[in-house]
Amino acid sequence: MTRSAPCLLFMSELDDPRVWREALQRAWPELDVRVWPATGDPDEIDFALVWQPPPGVLGSFANLRLIVNLGAGVDAIAADDSLPAHVPIARLADPGQAQMMDGYVLLAVLRHHRELHRFEQARRERRWAYNYPRPHSACRVGVMGLGYLGTHAARALAAQGFDVVGWSRSAKSLPDIETHAGPEGLAAFLCAIDILVAMLPATAETRRVIGRQVFYGLPRGAKFVSVGRGSTVDEAALLDALREGQIAEATLDVFATEPLPPEHPFWEMDQVLITPHLASAAVPETAARQVVDNCRRVLSGQMPEYVIDRARGY
Amino acid sequence: MTRSAPCLLFMSELDDPRVWREALQRAWPELDVRVWPATGDPDEIDFALVWQPPPGVLGSFANLRLIVNLGAGVDAIAADDSLPAHVPIARLADPGQAQMMDGYVLLAVLRHHRELHRFEQARRERRWAYNYPRPHSACRVGVMGLGYLGTHAARALAAQGFDVVGWSRSAKSLPDIETHAGPEGLAAFLCAIDILVAMLPATAETRRVIGRQVFYGLPRGAKFVSVGRGSTVDEAALLDALREGQIAEATLDVFATEPLPPEHPFWEMDQVLITPHLASAAVPETAARQVVDNCRRVLSGQMPEYVIDRARGY
Repeated sequence: MTRSAPCLLFMSELDDPRVWREALQRAWPELDVRVWPATGDPDEIDFALVWQPPPGVLGSFANLRLIVNLGAGVDAIAADDSLPAHVPIARLADPGQAQMMDGYVLLAVLRHHRELHRFEQARRERRWAYNYPRPHSACRVGVMGLGYLGTHAARALAAQGFDVVGWSRSAKSLPDIETHAGPEGLAAFLCAIDILVAMLPATAETRRVIGRQVFYGLPRGAKFVSVGRGSTVDEAALLDALREGQIAEATLDVFATEPLPPEHPFWEMDQVLITPHLASAAVPETAARQVVDNCRRVLSGQMPEYVIDRARGY
Repeated sequence: MTRSAPCLLFMSELDDPRVWREALQRAWPELDVRVWPATGDPDEIDFALVWQPPPGVLGSFANLRLIVNLGAGVDAIAADDSLPAHVPIARLADPGQAQMMDGYVLLAVLRHHRELHRFEQARRERRWAYNYPRPHSACRVGVMGLGYLGTHAARALAAQGFDVVGWSRSAKSLPDIETHAGPEGLAAFLCAIDILVAMLPATAETRRVIGRQVFYGLPRGAKFVSVGRGSTVDEAALLDALREGQIAEATLDVFATEPLPPEHPFWEMDQVLITPHLASAAVPETAARQVVDNCRRVLSGQMPEYVIDRARGY
């Protein structure tokens, strides 16, 4: 039997397969896109684009060459032992998603820097509360986590003139951005930050790592933006820091439990802005191009990009 | 008498002369900076950096070669007949001020695009109001007024992936940005805009030009950001458009009367964010470098940049 076209299997309960099929075929007209459970001959599947695939299914495709995770967080898929061990798993590195995340981070940082919360209060009091505006360069923003999205956001903040500093587990160097790494670099990273942006991945190691030590390592009155993963934040420590005024304001998009339960104390804090985990999402049009590029690399014998390290968890 | 150094006179009741003197002398160490009323020999004054100078004073400096207005709005100085007619008047074109304005415009546009107002309400109701986020490219932002700050902001919005369209009195072309011009271009400019950003200068011609025709030329439910000059907006028409839901939300930084009087109906509108005319301000450090560059041009016999047309009013 001759193979007529490279073949991708799409598996997601959450994402619209028609939108993705269209976007993938615009990027690669010859691509045969199949939607689970209509797989056809399982030996023909070259690539799988998946969100939380049913355990064991991917192991049944003998010629599978690449699994791509639909989304930025790979914690679920990295921990899934049922995935075939010899097939590389790649994450999305979607410029559209990164642009949306940049926008959310810029929005949260600018809102804190320009003290919009104060003007929202002043409006209720019909008060003209003039304050000479400070330039962006007077505001130090720390980005914790320098993966694909964190690095992109750090660059976007620097492009707007903010004084950006980054922290990552292992040392990273970014042009024109001061970086620190590891537990030994944490204090120097935190000590002069006005606004901390949390963009860590969810791994066993990052669980509740943003806790009392981080919040009290910041100058008093710092502001906090959480857009990485809810599991990386110690919410009890954050509540204490907010109640004590150590953290003056927060913008939270991710939580330990989602949806955030109605009885959670965050809801009643006027200084906390809550958004329902929508800082960014894959944009099929741009993401499909990157998925296709990665599939083509594999087909031509190159190593795929953005491969996750299953042991490390990201 | 030999002239030892070029000489600049600083005149402003609003700005701190020490900060400006330091910034100017960092940019040009030889510059002799004098602060009104301590002018010394009036014949030695080469340049004047002014905000609302007392009438007649500038006419008494026989060797004055350039007047620079401290601020983006030149409406007051353009209308001042007491200024010597043969001396060019330049405006500030401060990259620091432009960056601050970009930040405010990005903040307002991102806040409307990401529906932060909706999430602020949802928080009060402890409601997790998920909505699939739309990419920036799905949001059309119109910038009305393509002067120094308007052009800068249009570029900053386009760099974030927004679908930007511009309008100006006379035709302008910007790389990768669709532009329209003049009264005949207004309808095509407005018809598909999600968020309109007003950045027109205050002139006799622009008085209340952003009125019913503009608001009802937009799609129903559009949002409005006003950062140019209060006099350019017909506030009665804006109030009607807000009450009728034609304009869904607004972010207003400038007003016909400032401070906005406590009895003004804008204060009680939940869909209106009011800030007290602080979208941007000159940053002495960056502005001083641009002022010094312009003074040096004049001294070396070149035409100064950013000269205002007194008849046109900007």
